[in-house]
Amino acid sequence: MDNFRIESDSVGELKIPTKAYYGVQTLRAKNNFNITGRKMHKDLIISLAEIKKASAVSNIKTGQLDTAIGTAIIKACDEIINGKYHEEFIVDPIQGGAGTSANMNANEVIANIALEILGNNKGNYSLIHPNDHVNMSQSTNDVFPTAGKMTIIKLLKNLKKEINNLYKALIAKSEEFDDVIKMGRTQLEDAIPITLGQEFSAYSQAIKRDLKRTELAIEEMEYVNMGATAIGTGLNAKKDYIDNIVSELDEISNLNLKQAPNLIDGTQNLDCFTIVSGYLKALAVNLSKISNDLRLMNSGPRTGLAEITLPPKQNGSSIMPGKINPVIPEVVNQISFNVIGNDTTITMACEAGQLELNAFEPIIFYNLFESIETLTYGIKTFTDNAIKDLVANRENCKKHVSNSIGLITAVNPYIGYQKSATIAKEALKSGKTIRDLLTKEHIFSNNEIDNVLDPYKMIKPKN
Amino acid sequence: MDNFRIESDSVGELKIPTKAYYGVQTLRAKNNFNITGRKMHKDLIISLAEIKKASAVSNIKTGQLDTAIGTAIIKACDEIINGKYHEEFIVDPIQGGAGTSANMNANEVIANIALEILGNNKGNYSLIHPNDHVNMSQSTNDVFPTAGKMTIIKLLKNLKKEINNLYKALIAKSEEFDDVIKMGRTQLEDAIPITLGQEFSAYSQAIKRDLKRTELAIEEMEYVNMGATAIGTGLNAKKDYIDNIVSELDEISNLNLKQAPNLIDGTQNLDCFTIVSGYLKALAVNLSKISNDLRLMNSGPRTGLAEITLPPKQNGSSIMPGKINPVIPEVVNQISFNVIGNDTTITMACEAGQLELNAFEPIIFYNLFESIETLTYGIKTFTDNAIKDLVANRENCKKHVSNSIGLITAVNPYIGYQKSATIAKEALKSGKTIRDLLTKEHIFSNNEIDNVLDPYKMIKPKN
Amino acid sequence: MDNFRIESDSVGELKIPTKAYYGVQTLRAKNNFNITGRKMHKDLIISLAEIKKASAVSNIKTGQLDTAIGTAIIKACDEIINGKYHEEFIVDPIQGGAGTSANMNANEVIANIALEILGNNKGNYSLIHPNDHVNMSQSTNDVFPTAGKMTIIKLLKNLKKEINNLYKALIAKSEEFDDVIKMGRTQLEDAIPITLGQEFSAYSQAIKRDLKRTELAIEEMEYVNMGATAIGTGLNAKKDYIDNIVSELDEISNLNLKQAPNLIDGTQNLDCFTIVSGYLKALAVNLSKISNDLRLMNSGPRTGLAEITLPPKQNGSSIMPGKINPVIPEVVNQISFNVIGNDTTITMACEAGQLELNAFEPIIFYNLFESIETLTYGIKTFTDNAIKDLVANRENCKKHVSNSIGLITAVNPYIGYQKSATIAKEALKSGKTIRDLLTKEHIFSNNEIDNVLDPYKMIKPKN
Amino acid sequence: MDNFRIESDSVGELKIPTKAYYGVQTLRAKNNFNITGRKMHKDLIISLAEIKKASAVSNIKTGQLDTAIGTAIIKACDEIINGKYHEEFIVDPIQGGAGTSANMNANEVIANIALEILGNNKGNYSLIHPNDHVNMSQSTNDVFPTAGKMTIIKLLKNLKKEINNLYKALIAKSEEFDDVIKMGRTQLEDAIPITLGQEFSAYSQAIKRDLKRTELAIEEMEYVNMGATAIGTGLNAKKDYIDNIVSELDEISNLNLKQAPNLIDGTQNLDCFTIVSGYLKALAVNLSKISNDLRLMNSGPRTGLAEITLPPKQNGSSIMPGKINPVIPEVVNQISFNVIGNDTTITMACEAGQLELNAFEPIIFYNLFESIETLTYGIKTFTDNAIKDLVANRENCKKHVSNSIGLITAVNPYIGYQKSATIAKEALKSGKTIRDLLTKEHIFSNNEIDNVLDPYKMIKPKN
Repeated sequence: MDNFRIESDSVGELKIPTKAYYGVQTLRAKNNFNITGRKMHKDLIISLAEIKKASAVSNIKTGQLDTAIGTAIIKACDEIINGKYHEEFIVDPIQGGAGTSANMNANEVIANIALEILGNNKGNYSLIHPNDHVNMSQSTNDVFPTAGKMTIIKLLKNLKKEINNLYKALIAKSEEFDDVIKMGRTQLEDAIPITLGQEFSAYSQAIKRDLKRTELAIEEMEYVNMGATAIGTGLNAKKDYIDNIVSELDEISNLNLKQAPNLIDGTQNLDCFTIVSGYLKALAVNLSKISNDLRLMNSGPRTGLAEITLPPKQNGSSIMPGKINPVIPEVVNQISFNVIGNDTTITMACEAGQLELNAFEPIIFYNLFESIETLTYGIKTFTDNAIKDLVANRENCKKHVSNSIGLITAVNPYIGYQKSATIAKEALKSGKTIRDLLTKEHIFSNNEIDNVLDPYKMIKPKN
Repeated sequence: MDNFRIESDSVGELKIPTKAYYGVQTLRAKNNFNITGRKMHKDLIISLAEIKKASAVSNIKTGQLDTAIGTAIIKACDEIINGKYHEEFIVDPIQGGAGTSANMNANEVIANIALEILGNNKGNYSLIHPNDHVNMSQSTNDVFPTAGKMTIIKLLKNLKKEINNLYKALIAKSEEFDDVIKMGRTQLEDAIPITLGQEFSAYSQAIKRDLKRTELAIEEMEYVNMGATAIGTGLNAKKDYIDNIVSELDEISNLNLKQAPNLIDGTQNLDCFTIVSGYLKALAVNLSKISNDLRLMNSGPRTGLAEITLPPKQNGSSIMPGKINPVIPEVVNQISFNVIGNDTTITMACEAGQLELNAFEPIIFYNLFESIETLTYGIKTFTDNAIKDLVANRENCKKHVSNSIGLITAVNPYIGYQKSATIAKEALKSGKTIRDLLTKEHIFSNNEIDNVLDPYKMIKPKN
Repeated sequence: MDNFRIESDSVGELKIPTKAYYGVQTLRAKNNFNITGRKMHKDLIISLAEIKKASAVSNIKTGQLDTAIGTAIIKACDEIINGKYHEEFIVDPIQGGAGTSANMNANEVIANIALEILGNNKGNYSLIHPNDHVNMSQSTNDVFPTAGKMTIIKLLKNLKKEINNLYKALIAKSEEFDDVIKMGRTQLEDAIPITLGQEFSAYSQAIKRDLKRTELAIEEMEYVNMGATAIGTGLNAKKDYIDNIVSELDEISNLNLKQAPNLIDGTQNLDCFTIVSGYLKALAVNLSKISNDLRLMNSGPRTGLAEITLPPKQNGSSIMPGKINPVIPEVVNQISFNVIGNDTTITMACEAGQLELNAFEPIIFYNLFESIETLTYGIKTFTDNAIKDLVANRENCKKHVSNSIGLITAVNPYIGYQKSATIAKEALKSGKTIRDLLTKEHIFSNNEIDNVLDPYKMIKPKN
Repeated sequence: MDNFRIESDSVGELKIPTKAYYGVQTLRAKNNFNITGRKMHKDLIISLAEIKKASAVSNIKTGQLDTAIGTAIIKACDEIINGKYHEEFIVDPIQGGAGTSANMNANEVIANIALEILGNNKGNYSLIHPNDHVNMSQSTNDVFPTAGKMTIIKLLKNLKKEINNLYKALIAKSEEFDDVIKMGRTQLEDAIPITLGQEFSAYSQAIKRDLKRTELAIEEMEYVNMGATAIGTGLNAKKDYIDNIVSELDEISNLNLKQAPNLIDGTQNLDCFTIVSGYLKALAVNLSKISNDLRLMNSGPRTGLAEITLPPKQNGSSIMPGKINPVIPEVVNQISFNVIGNDTTITMACEAGQLELNAFEPIIFYNLFESIETLTYGIKTFTDNAIKDLVANRENCKKHVSNSIGLITAVNPYIGYQKSATIAKEALKSGKTIRDLLTKEHIFSNNEIDNVLDPYKMIKPKN
């Protein structure tokens, strides 16, 4: 008994395993692109099926697609949307051909499922054809970018949730640490007092901007070019179909999709992905800066700043007993570096479009999906395993302040910059405190000194 | 007679040329940072003076600054705003110290001008002190980022004007070329017909997004941290001053400035510059893609696509007579590459902030100023010297279409993908046209063929 | 019956599945770093086992490790080297902690395998301890970077093989196309004749440089810091061990490993990875440029340059019948963009080292492994599916040359640049050939014209 | 009287100021490319003149160039080499056209100087023509990349000198600080002792690699494509000329130049610049890491690590008296970020070559020149103003060590990892020292404790 069926395309014939739902074009692509060994993203597969379903619905409505065939296609799509047949999507995520292989993989799998639904054998494409029926009124050039954008929206929504959790955790910490006076530092040098709460408040403000930007990123992705077909002119699609396909797809996907105002532009210019990656990069910049700060403030335990203690999550060293390292911020740093590097790749790929198409969407999606997902999971562990249970070393923070030379800044308005600078130098040289030196100078009464050097008065402007 | 005066600071004494308005701190910085040999940006100098003026006004109002001194400072600032004394700004734009050198250069120059206005000698800082009076209620850490943002806004406004001119030129071309039928190409391979007007319309749509993004970039820059002083806590500034300084500055600069909602965040987190650079990068992506397209369509004159002719602006070769090259798009490509590289620098610098400050603003501004200005001038020459006088090679465009195999796509809905593919292969093999082969096949009448293969019907969807 | 055993570390207790060979520290790491969902690289696991084996051998020799325990550890390592137990390596490749989690995963798995070899239960660490015995004389800070470098060498050797195959394929093509005269183009504009063979010869020369650079990259990786322990001072390792561990490891791995001349430097400074990535980036630049050229020369089939035909590997379009796209060069472009972006990530991570360690090796390895492997597989498909069966369209190439205006360049030395330019302009305007115009001008005899305009004489210098 | 002369080219006529030595093509380019407002690099101008001189010499020798004309050209070149007429080079460094404008600027200026040398008027090109005589046997496509490479070699030699000075300064410090025991840190957490001298020794080793790499970079640049003319086939140059031009140029320039083994490859593939930039990037990585370390160790003076004190070079703050900031390392960080960003630009430009030429050399040179020069000046100030006078805070360093928990690592081999970890935790919790806890535990005698906890014994392996 034969375990293969023969399929053919313009290039020639190929043996396809009988049980496979993919077909000849998929198998060629599989052989041409053995690059990462990874699979297409689950959400991309589902998005493709949602598009195929919406198209079938629209094509039935405009009378172009036979209802029986269309209904079978719709059922086949629903199976995939519900998580079945994903193992039939075998093409590499990094592929040439502008996503044609991914699209044809979907077309072939759906055609064969639909054929079986109608009681036919797989491969019997004269009844339901991957191109003529499943891909009807479509082109890879509208299907694939649309599926990519839908996937990105889904992933960004998960990201947004985690950013919001981080934001709330930072706000909670800013309140918890409201009264923790500590030394502020600029350029790593002692500056003037601040509270740890103020610092976390600043972090929360930065992350709040990223929350807003994630929403802007989602909005950028909502404009899809379904109806464009090959190059944006809509060739081979009916006007009715073009007018309705996006609202149909929106209904199925519930992603607030809108049709791009200029379908030719929407097919060839990919600056929207550069922008989305740019927003993610700004998030990475903020996360990495906060992680760096936490690692600095957590440095020690004995010979560093030791202003905070990150929750111990695992042994820090295979050789140094008792060592606990800031492993969670460290992984956030690394994710951030990776997102920044991915942005370079995405930018180059967006720039490389030519004339009516940018064929480099596969690498754009590969990197954008990775950026968003690693940020999502990175932020989750950051919030749960670093921020939430972080504690302030209140005594140490306070001791730093009292001992600091930076307090002299508050004296500035009373005695001028130059005189203050002299006292600061004297403090540094002698090892004495500012308080001691001021007392010696008899410029202020002791009461005045208490008042002037009160760090809690330095953390906000004077009336 | 002595040509030097002696000035001193915490580090020690230095000889300053008698005629110099800068002082000891400026000269030290000049010696420490001999990096590019370039000068600070003119608009940055003016922005610094505007800030110093606004601060003097506010400090007078809150009663902290003696009116006579304050008035002299204001006059000194006005001189600089009006373009005088710019040669006194001698510190290198790439400098360590978070902009302290630039700020002190401004403080010293202004103090010395003001001293002369009041009839005193330069260097007589006991009367008007660079730190105590000119820098009153301020810190480099609010002054310098604010001056940078003001400069960026000014430069972005120039950029916006040029983007708008480009947009209008592209729209004009899309109308002029409305009827120029040509071959669309995907992945550099013949696809289906389009008009040159549609292509320019797509370009205009992309540039329209960049126009919008430039406005968003300006908005990002409008939030300044004046009033923050050293680390955002407003130490040494009065509450009244803090509440009023930004509106004072806004009145002087007319840049729609607003105070950052969290001054601590506004002092330490620089993601806003990453975002602005990200917007510029998306513009660069679009410009570079359009330039690549123009160079492709202009390729020839005999052995390329030759669909358009860029206006000849200069001899193309020192050895090949008569050669004309697409020099204007080429310079736009290069500017775009540079903007993309600058974005990497800006991102790294934004990421490198530590605790209460990011000390790396000088390199951020250096790159952002360059990105914006080269884009501005690049777009200007692009619009004037490439787009406006670009002509379509109508006959060649049309000939390509008639000869093309891509026309078979329109036959697809009538005879199916597989049969169409066979005809396409036959055309390629035999060198015949699609029309000839269809005629031979007797599938359509001649009238039908005329209708099906009419390229003007392929550039929009069917009803 | 209980399916769990209890293990504990400094942080506390955890339930470990009875059948698991990993232990408490691995499980903590798994929970802390749920970032990519991917597994550690197979070759990294094997390299870790090779290191643990070499260390056990050395520790036995220096008398620090009990021979029975050491022998069991060695046997355990051999199992992993032979491909067993890889599923026990469960920590995410992107992890905080400088690789401690990966190292401890290896230590725990090996300890438990060794325990079973000696007839004990898993988790009975008082007999064989992951830290005290398996990790003896080592630290994550020498083990992990060494394992990374070993893996990179292994992967680079695969890459080198594929580069060499590509080189040979290009050489073969340069010979096959030796006589294919075609138009050379600069700035996409017609320049002067060249042969297709000369073009492929130029490509082969560029790839030859990359072959050499891959060897340099391997050399960069051969210096490992085994013996450094925690920070390069060798604390807790005996001098004998330090002196012998690398040659022991070299014998096991056969990778030509050498000890870094300064172990402190070797532990904290990672510029070597920046350099390796830099070499890969240069390879990517060459591959992408060649791919772009092939796509340009392959453009058409009717309205492009059509000088070559890439082997058709799959249908090009889901909507346009008969369309064949240059999918293989396209995937090479995308891989190149990705390698260039990875370089940004790697560079940032290398820059972010602090004091005695760079904790960001996990993301460096993640990206370097990806860069090397995607290049390897990308080059393989490029050689096999694009270069080898590429054909020249000889007639079309020749026709371009005859028709070209660029031929005027050869006339330059006879009549001067200015006169030549006038003729070129006339040709362009009139549509005539250079030959026709020269004939009309009566400057040369017909014989002379034949000689001067012979393109085969233009492809090399005159004697 | 007229202050203009009329010149014309293929595009048309232009008025040229009578006193100008540049001509019509230069002026067109000036108008087309008003991008940066900056001038061409002085060394690029001189390199162009050296090439023109070498070509004239060679052309005289092969009998193609009239001796009188050739001699005048040579004299004109010598003037430029000696620093004259540089103000006549007016084209923008960022220019389209693959450097044709820069080359023509040189050709025109030299022609006009030569004309005056022979007693003729400027503009009288029928006697000495910019293209026919000055540019004889050349093309922009061999002249411009060669001039760029020559300039880069000159600049790299300056850089090498400064790297060497830095290397020597680091070695001196490693010796000076040989006995300064301090705490080593990994992941910013207390690890085990090291000496400050060992740290500087590690830095010197990293910089030594960069010294070697700078030599490799120079070697990459020594292969020039003079003789290639337009596309590498040498059209319009005599074989004798091609064989001799590079050795002639080498004699004039003394830069050890060699002819590229494949001139076609040498004209179109620019991976060599990617590699040179890659080497510079590795240098930037090392410099930035060292700068970060210095800023960390210098942090304080009271609330930071305070292990070293950088020489105070200028007041650190306009508001905080006595504050001294690490301004020199900060500028080195910024230069490094800029070099890394420039690398992205250079890489993109190198990738963007098409067929027989890469037209994007201007932006490559613009960025490479900047990278090399800012590194050169940055390293100079780093060596002179940061490294040389840096002092160790010996007492503070020592106190950190005694107080540290990391000392427990040395006890590891005696009592095992787990027991050691328990003591470390106890130390952290109780605030006690490791010494105190060990004494209490009665595991060691006091003498043994002295021996085991002696930090000077921890900085090297045991025999």
